[in-house]
Amino acid sequence: MRISELAAEADVPIATVKYYLREGLLPGGERTGATRAEYDASHVQRLGAIRALIDSGVSVADARAVLAAVDMPPGHLLDLLHIVHDATTPTVDAIDTAKAEQLARRMGWTEERSDPQALAVLAHALRRLDVAGFTIDDAAMSTYLDAVTRIARAEIAGIPTTSAEDAVRYVALGSVLVEPMLLALRRLAEQIEATRRFSP
Amino acid sequence: MRISELAAEADVPIATVKYYLREGLLPGGERTGATRAEYDASHVQRLGAIRALIDSGVSVADARAVLAAVDMPPGHLLDLLHIVHDATTPTVDAIDTAKAEQLARRMGWTEERSDPQALAVLAHALRRLDVAGFTIDDAAMSTYLDAVTRIARAEIAGIPTTSAEDAVRYVALGSVLVEPMLLALRRLAEQIEATRRFSP
Repeated sequence: MRISELAAEADVPIATVKYYLREGLLPGGERTGATRAEYDASHVQRLGAIRALIDSGVSVADARAVLAAVDMPPGHLLDLLHIVHDATTPTVDAIDTAKAEQLARRMGWTEERSDPQALAVLAHALRRLDVAGFTIDDAAMSTYLDAVTRIARAEIAGIPTTSAEDAVRYVALGSVLVEPMLLALRRLAEQIEATRRFSP
Repeated sequence: MRISELAAEADVPIATVKYYLREGLLPGGERTGATRAEYDASHVQRLGAIRALIDSGVSVADARAVLAAVDMPPGHLLDLLHIVHDATTPTVDAIDTAKAEQLARRMGWTEERSDPQALAVLAHALRRLDVAGFTIDDAAMSTYLDAVTRIARAEIAGIPTTSAEDAVRYVALGSVLVEPMLLALRRLAEQIEATRRFSP
């Protein structure tokens, strides 16, 4: 298909498609003339992935890093997960991570395979709650830890075994793209539970 | 305390404290002279709440709406939750919410107390996944629905009964401020589970 058809198919303005081409996010089509190129279904899917990442708040530079990891995946899915988390995590200041480590340990974290950045992000989130004078009691925290562990277990168990490419795509995109859905589901669940509890 | 002490206590620059005063986010202190006012512990806590909201990506205007709801709470906690969710949800285009409604129903949602905005946000998150060619199978979706329901149940059950003010604060701030922590915990849990499964 032509670039105009690609843009229409993926519901992205042509100027934006050209921008992604220039930025190296989207691989070029097959040249069929001096100013013409042919695109195929793989370009549509790639464009969809770019849009989804960018709509999720990932910057162009970070989306490029995620997609580069999809194109040239490291030998190990765990390394891919670290690359993706790193790319999509804002750099945070160094911070005391003692409380974060304590929570991580309750989920089975050990120092052998540590990711200081992930712990620092959690530490900052905990500090924000602290600064706002918001306390999460131990029972609620246990529920959070248990819930995210169940989620992560289902996600890791669900990594497709059909092909290495499918697995890479699933790990790289899933971790980031599921976040807005998860937050939307939690807010709905809060409304449902509040209705159940407080409705006359 | 003086404004300089308030700023130091809450670890916020004085200029920013003055900005929050001008914007009506922070109530003024008690006047003790032409250019002097006294602040107290309630100002420190309020400042902490403002910072936490803004650090969580809430705009100044939306933080004002959340804090206004805390100051003049509606008669019903459920209405407060709706106000807070509304204030901190970016306005999204109208979209077909059939799939979102289907998921909401699985969590016990009924039309009697519907929040079209919450459903639209979920519908957009689902569409992003769709556009990226990312499919969540039914088993994984059940895990997500179950996990957020457990979370919401614990959160609503944990609403403090000590005072109406505490309850309002908990509902208004908790729903928004817990989000970054929840996402950080999920990412850590993914790394832990991936390590467990793939480490040699």
